[in-house]
Amino acid sequence: MRNNDGLFAVGSPVTHWSVQTSNPVQYEIRACENLLDPENSTILEDASGSSGQRRFIVTDGVVDSLYGDRVRAYFDHHGVEHRVLVLNDGETHKSMNAVLQVTEALDAFGIDRRREPVIAIGGGVLMDIVGFAASLYRRSTPFIRIPTTLIGLVDAGVGAKTGVNHNGHKNRLGTYFPADRTLLDRSFLATLDARHISNGLAEILKIALIKDARLFDLLEQHGADLLRNKLQSPADVGPTPADVPVDQRLAARGLHLDPATEVVERAIQGMLEELQPNLWEKVLERVVDYGHTFSPTIEMHALPALLHGEAVAVDMALTTVMAERRGLVSSYQRDRVLEVMARLGLPVWHPLCTPEVLGDALRDTVRHRDGKQRLPLPVGIGSALFVNDVTDGELAAAAESLAALGSGVSR
Amino acid sequence: MRNNDGLFAVGSPVTHWSVQTSNPVQYEIRACENLLDPENSTILEDASGSSGQRRFIVTDGVVDSLYGDRVRAYFDHHGVEHRVLVLNDGETHKSMNAVLQVTEALDAFGIDRRREPVIAIGGGVLMDIVGFAASLYRRSTPFIRIPTTLIGLVDAGVGAKTGVNHNGHKNRLGTYFPADRTLLDRSFLATLDARHISNGLAEILKIALIKDARLFDLLEQHGADLLRNKLQSPADVGPTPADVPVDQRLAARGLHLDPATEVVERAIQGMLEELQPNLWEKVLERVVDYGHTFSPTIEMHALPALLHGEAVAVDMALTTVMAERRGLVSSYQRDRVLEVMARLGLPVWHPLCTPEVLGDALRDTVRHRDGKQRLPLPVGIGSALFVNDVTDGELAAAAESLAALGSGVSR
Ligand SMILES: NC(=O)c1ccc[n+]([C@@H]2O[C@H](COP(=O)([O-])OP(=O)(O)OC[C@H]3O[C@@H](n4cnc5c(N)ncnc54)[C@H](O)[C@@H]3O)[C@@H](O)[C@H]2O)c1
Ligand SMILES: NC(=O)c1ccc[n+]([C@@H]2O[C@H](COP(=O)([O-])OP(=O)(O)OC[C@H]3O[C@@H](n4cnc5c(N)ncnc54)[C@H](O)[C@@H]3O)[C@@H](O)[C@H]2O)c1
Ligand SMILES: [Zn+2]
Ligand SMILES: [Zn+2]
Repeated sequence: MRNNDGLFAVGSPVTHWSVQTSNPVQYEIRACENLLDPENSTILEDASGSSGQRRFIVTDGVVDSLYGDRVRAYFDHHGVEHRVLVLNDGETHKSMNAVLQVTEALDAFGIDRRREPVIAIGGGVLMDIVGFAASLYRRSTPFIRIPTTLIGLVDAGVGAKTGVNHNGHKNRLGTYFPADRTLLDRSFLATLDARHISNGLAEILKIALIKDARLFDLLEQHGADLLRNKLQSPADVGPTPADVPVDQRLAARGLHLDPATEVVERAIQGMLEELQPNLWEKVLERVVDYGHTFSPTIEMHALPALLHGEAVAVDMALTTVMAERRGLVSSYQRDRVLEVMARLGLPVWHPLCTPEVLGDALRDTVRHRDGKQRLPLPVGIGSALFVNDVTDGELAAAAESLAALGSGVSR
Repeated sequence: MRNNDGLFAVGSPVTHWSVQTSNPVQYEIRACENLLDPENSTILEDASGSSGQRRFIVTDGVVDSLYGDRVRAYFDHHGVEHRVLVLNDGETHKSMNAVLQVTEALDAFGIDRRREPVIAIGGGVLMDIVGFAASLYRRSTPFIRIPTTLIGLVDAGVGAKTGVNHNGHKNRLGTYFPADRTLLDRSFLATLDARHISNGLAEILKIALIKDARLFDLLEQHGADLLRNKLQSPADVGPTPADVPVDQRLAARGLHLDPATEVVERAIQGMLEELQPNLWEKVLERVVDYGHTFSPTIEMHALPALLHGEAVAVDMALTTVMAERRGLVSSYQRDRVLEVMARLGLPVWHPLCTPEVLGDALRDTVRHRDGKQRLPLPVGIGSALFVNDVTDGELAAAAESLAALGSGVSR
């Protein structure tokens, strides 16, 4: 009947409009050093030259106690009016209440809709909450992520998902809303305890198992060191001046990237290769869902005993055993995988791996994946396929053999 | 350093990734008749042939009391397992609580992530809540809108915005998430009271004033009739059989579209022409924001005394007077506009139009529009421009002359 910009209205007998459009999304992830050094202006780079800049910063209590003074000093130094909102830390506080707390503090502070990005400084929990709040506030407010945990650096900080737990379900509510910029500074990891380093190594191992055999080799070879050194710049780079970039220092010694850098970069690269073509998860067969079929239910049941990455590790151990039983992985490869998990400080079994819990978890995941299991299983090391025919019997048998194997693996 | 699918990582000294992608969105709006007739399968059209279909329906208490029996009978007739969640009606219940109530009921019912669209049957409040809940649930669950108010049919049901009021602010939280399908059945309006018909006519008048002079003429000529007949199919179509489409019945009598149909279709067409190229509001100068600069604050202050469209009418009356004072609109045109508002049963003034409230409203809108007023003002009838230089003095003067004029317009 009428026609405008591809929009079309069709006349009698039924009037009908079809709206077709597309939302372009672009975001940046950058590895940086000395982010909180007052002389480093990276955090404020998107600021227009105009005076009167204001910033709203959200962090959690632990991060605030460790870095809060430097954060405040940074904005003071730059003459930026700011407010730091401090949330309770931890997975049990990853709730809609925390999201609303952020939005109410935003009301009180008042920010311009597009020019004054909210800044999230913290781990995966903090970034998921703040990203969720930013996506809802005035239907979208830009934000910047500064991850301070390893999970944050290689996973929660680089994708597009936000969310909170609700009604007893993991990440039941959320949005797809990437930060405009993510600034990665690995030096935050120096204050993180070993268990949370392991937690992040689990997500790195996930990428290794489904698509990057070289990454697996690196973890096998250097995993214990990485855990001990908390992925800080390598000791073996030598006494060259600090203002010479690491890779030049390494090159001077005939080396390539140090293992910590290569591991982190390969993990991020692998993750982004999978995310970019499927940011809104329209394709429900996602290899990066590996380790995330049974773990959401296990994590919520065990809360707060198991960390996210630990639950993911248990899921990966279980599905590696399933893959071995199906002949997709050799028993030698299976043992290497379980051995690397142990070396990374990760659990390979949990008492919640009962047939009942695993069956419930699979049923909820099937709803999440629109009626099909779409379960990624490893094929050898560094590759994966999807299956849809897992039975309760197979789950029970796999759980049983894992329990037997698991007790043999020393953590 | 590495390159994949347009994703790029740049090597030393700073590693950097840029993620670029795009989310294609498509949705349908269709005018239908007899939607709740059990023989009409439109509502279930997206159902795959497979048995075991399930649907989750949300409505409000008033709509349920009027149409609930027919809704249940419809799904029973089609053998579709269903649950009807009934929310409290009205703007004061447009809150995050209602959204969470929907998501918890979804957990209890259990739906497949993509195949079982949630169905929202109700007015703008109900659709904004359900759309918000659907967008958050598992980070997006498809939904269908069946608007039952005039605002729903021409505005809330055709765009992409969802949301709720929060912390005393109108639509402070929300998402951009259009329904996959909107099904328009004007016969629902037969049970709506005159005040809510007027309420919807305000949004139609908005489109007329900023971009469609012919629509304004139709409202001027037929507005009082449309209000009286509740935009039902015209009495003058004659006694031809009901299964012959209205336009054929009219054509048989040498007529074109009846005024009610033309008014609704022009309003939707105009709205969609503005929305489609700017669905995510990246461009903040939006002519469809006309009437929505001062009204959000007025509406929330007056709640529940003023309906949404009534607050929009007051805003349009005020800005029409401002435009006349600036010489953009003649005094003759201004009087025609105020006269049409009265004919449509709309207020042209409210005691909350004080300099203080208007000043506060403008300041909040400036934050919403990223630091600039970007205030649409009418130019004549059927056109608009944007201004950024409104002063408190101009607001006070306009409010004063409107108060004087307003008392002269008979509603
Ligand atoms: N959005 C995504 O794509 C995505 C991806 C992976 C994981 N996640 C989510 O991330 C969460 C797990 O992330 P996490 O492990 O970072 O959790 P977290 O944010 O709870 O951080 C773990 C603990 O470390 C503390 N901490 C943070 N930085 C520190 C530092 N530099 N030094 C010392 N302590 C520090 C925190 O206060 C907290 O107590 C889960 O909720 C998971 O669902 C999200
Ligand atoms: N999302 C958008 O783009 C958009 C656009 C315009 C307005 N809105 C929102 O829409 C809301 C106003 O919409 P509304 O006026 O439809 O409000 P509403 O949903 O509150 O409906 C008004 C009243 O009419 C009742 N009702 C609904 N259908 C009826 C029927 N067929 N017969 C008799 N009574 C019926 C409702 O129960 C309610 O009491 C506001 O909150 C506004 O912000 C949203
Ligand atoms: Zn994870
Ligand atoms: Zn409106």
